[in-house]
Amino acid sequence: MDKLPKIGRYPFTAEPFHCDFSGKLFMGHLGNHLLNAADFHSNDRGYGMNYLNTVRKTWVLSRLAIEMEEMPKAYDKFFVETWVEGAMRYFTSRNYKVVGEDEHVYGHGRSIWAMIDTETRQPTDILAVRDGLITEYIEKDYLCPIEKSSRVRMDDKVVLVRSIDTFYNDVDMNGHINSVKYIEHLLDLWDLEWYRRHALRRLDIAYVAESHQGNQLNFYRTPQCEAVGEETETLEYCVKITKTVSPELEEIEVCRCKVVFGESVR
Amino acid sequence: MDKLPKIGRYPFTAEPFHCDFSGKLFMGHLGNHLLNAADFHSNDRGYGMNYLNTVRKTWVLSRLAIEMEEMPKAYDKFFVETWVEGAMRYFTSRNYKVVGEDEHVYGHGRSIWAMIDTETRQPTDILAVRDGLITEYIEKDYLCPIEKSSRVRMDDKVVLVRSIDTFYNDVDMNGHINSVKYIEHLLDLWDLEWYRRHALRRLDIAYVAESHQGNQLNFYRTPQCEAVGEETETLEYCVKITKTVSPELEEIEVCRCKVVFGESVR
Repeated sequence: MDKLPKIGRYPFTAEPFHCDFSGKLFMGHLGNHLLNAADFHSNDRGYGMNYLNTVRKTWVLSRLAIEMEEMPKAYDKFFVETWVEGAMRYFTSRNYKVVGEDEHVYGHGRSIWAMIDTETRQPTDILAVRDGLITEYIEKDYLCPIEKSSRVRMDDKVVLVRSIDTFYNDVDMNGHINSVKYIEHLLDLWDLEWYRRHALRRLDIAYVAESHQGNQLNFYRTPQCEAVGEETETLEYCVKITKTVSPELEEIEVCRCKVVFGESVR
Repeated sequence: MDKLPKIGRYPFTAEPFHCDFSGKLFMGHLGNHLLNAADFHSNDRGYGMNYLNTVRKTWVLSRLAIEMEEMPKAYDKFFVETWVEGAMRYFTSRNYKVVGEDEHVYGHGRSIWAMIDTETRQPTDILAVRDGLITEYIEKDYLCPIEKSSRVRMDDKVVLVRSIDTFYNDVDMNGHINSVKYIEHLLDLWDLEWYRRHALRRLDIAYVAESHQGNQLNFYRTPQCEAVGEETETLEYCVKITKTVSPELEEIEVCRCKVVFGESVR
């Protein structure tokens, strides 16, 4: 069998019922597509969840950054390309490129994944899996022009803006709150009126701890920080998400996020 | 150009991040696929949203029933077949069949759609669109073996079990709360522990009124009704969903639902 190429390419359609009021794909659905592409790519090459589950290990998403020039519109067909840029003992970096059928670029993503033992929940050596199979697929030269996620600094100015409960539909196959559900709940902090006037440009999310159905999620947000970009003004917010497992226990941080909006919708 | 067949057939994959804790496709995502299939089918044949929007009309989902023998599992490839069973002046009935690559049947769906004028929001004559084009695609002989939705009788025993707020991610391209979001919020009334012991067999939902972002949704549920099916015992619940537009206004009914669970997970 010929070895698969390092870069995987998976077709998707911006299905109309996955699009927001403005006819553009919801960022949550795009995030889902990236995660699915990562899953297909790693399974096809022998180091995905399907194999890992047989040896009591699994991938855990640690960080995700998505930066979009433009979101796919309803009925657009597009591809998610994904490749592993680097693999170390405890972390691997995987990049994404979202391109249209005419090869025009919608945007890019970067992610960091860890591998854990599903019984101990402790990090496990990625390079020990199938004699370091993943290292045969490292692609360092394909361009991912967006910045790496930097640690989100959470200053003291964050204030509680919402608390929500979590339910059956929030939980994924791992039994935890789905990584993308945090993104949806996060983006729900802004209302329709806001999205009429602002376009989401970039999203960074660092997953600090797992949460489970029934946990309450609390969203703490900075007041708007204005940052002047090179060409256009952008508005930047930091959000800390905590979980309340039970009323008598202290809140535990589960995610740190940064959201950047452009001032006008393109 | 050759006329398209009456029955459309669209491929989908049960993407792993669209699956629940048990590795089965979420009913909400399946519902989305049915609606997308309906959209593709009607657009391809010239009486879909894409054409209707140019003449200030749109399709509105009035009823949806889904009855599943089995849900697709993660990575399963399947097809949604859809066809129009009948078209009258103000309503059309559209059916669905969900089949695997090996043609084994997962389940079926039935839906009723109305057409409205997007400016007046009033029902408009379906048969007046393109000289009754839809009637050229009526398929009466293809089997849809599930019962039609009957009017859900809501007795006095319903009690308020949850109220939730609606946000940006709940709203679809029509600017209303997405039909499938009601299904997700509805199915969230039962917790993970319930879904470990029960399988969703059938869902009926009648859409009575539209709701908008910011409306509060209130869920009223009957105590469990036990109904003995022909072969297995089933548990049946009725749920009424109302909206609260503002605290000083009376609640308005938006959906009536019936949910049937099988006693054990197959």
